[in-house]
Amino acid sequence: MVLCDVGNTFLHFFYKGEIRKEKLDALKPKKPEVCIYYISVNKKAEKKLLASHRNCINLAPYFEINTGYSGIGIDRIAACAGIESGIVVDAGSAITIDIVQDNVHLGGYILPGLQAYRDSYKSISNALDYDIDLSTKLDALPLNTRAAISFGCIKSIILMIGDSARGKKITFTGGDGKFFSRFFENSIFDEAVVFKGMQKAYENFIKQKDSCNDNNRFA
Amino acid sequence: MVLCDVGNTFLHFFYKGEIRKEKLDALKPKKPEVCIYYISVNKKAEKKLLASHRNCINLAPYFEINTGYSGIGIDRIAACAGIESGIVVDAGSAITIDIVQDNVHLGGYILPGLQAYRDSYKSISNALDYDIDLSTKLDALPLNTRAAISFGCIKSIILMIGDSARGKKITFTGGDGKFFSRFFENSIFDEAVVFKGMQKAYENFIKQKDSCNDNNRFA
Repeated sequence: MVLCDVGNTFLHFFYKGEIRKEKLDALKPKKPEVCIYYISVNKKAEKKLLASHRNCINLAPYFEINTGYSGIGIDRIAACAGIESGIVVDAGSAITIDIVQDNVHLGGYILPGLQAYRDSYKSISNALDYDIDLSTKLDALPLNTRAAISFGCIKSIILMIGDSARGKKITFTGGDGKFFSRFFENSIFDEAVVFKGMQKAYENFIKQKDSCNDNNRFA
Repeated sequence: MVLCDVGNTFLHFFYKGEIRKEKLDALKPKKPEVCIYYISVNKKAEKKLLASHRNCINLAPYFEINTGYSGIGIDRIAACAGIESGIVVDAGSAITIDIVQDNVHLGGYILPGLQAYRDSYKSISNALDYDIDLSTKLDALPLNTRAAISFGCIKSIILMIGDSARGKKITFTGGDGKFFSRFFENSIFDEAVVFKGMQKAYENFIKQKDSCNDNNRFA
């Protein structure tokens, strides 16, 4: 079984405990008999996957996370399904922070990702065109522009996550997840949390299929 | 006496207690005998001002704020000079937060302005293309995308300012200053704080001129 998380730029495949990413425009052919269980936040990319491989099943209907959030991305649902209770932070091009309690999604919010902050500062003024300094000190007031923008975005993200967590366990994922996880004691970095959620949806899918087969048998 | 704060898009004039802004490309002629005391963060705009009016004096050398910050904008220095101790937050296209104690600038940092956050979300994904909702609730977890981005940027800015303030008095200025000031008890909104600082610099300028005249008298 292969799992696939279809994003905006990449498709992330999970197979035998390993994550491999492929560019949307450079999908490698898979063995036709392999079934790819996928989720997708990008219709166009989903079409490309389906065109390149016939044997695909969308896991979206098989998640058991309850939420009152309208319009939440299926990748966030999958990440929430990957934990049972706590906070899941996906720090990628955007940073999504979602709060889960006993498989119920209580809500969440979105911050720009670090690269988006960098681009944002630059768009305001060329005088703010600096790379974010990940080693900037957060316990001393900045005394130059690069420190001032780095401190601003990094510390504001950390304060927000800390304010939401209040001691709850935090699971970080995404490209900058490892960086942020080191600021929180009760946290882990798990790049596969989305696939852990998908694994649960897959199990639900199998259960439903079996129950369907059983019904047919007794018909 | 006319004061002028030369920015990137506008020139703000302060005359008889009133602030008037003029676009860089549409400067109105002033009476030639009027002296304009100015600060500038934009060389090109400064040149335009000087070309349109001969009688101008740059107040930059007359500020008495000490700082170890390298490359700080003169508008931030002027805002710091406008208070004696506390925090000054200029919430415009960028949000600058500076900490001042007994006329010493201890440091500061920079966040994107609300419009820059909005543009940043949009640049990440069209799915995040929403106006910031200034009335979004900050004490309940968001349950839709517009609330999620509004909550993210507004609350992270507020947490940062609160973390820096720790009870110190906060002076807000800039286009979104009034909005943010209402989240803090020990705060005021003062759209003229930069001009208050410039007024002090002007007084220093006059003192030096008088002392210079006195020296000439005794020479």
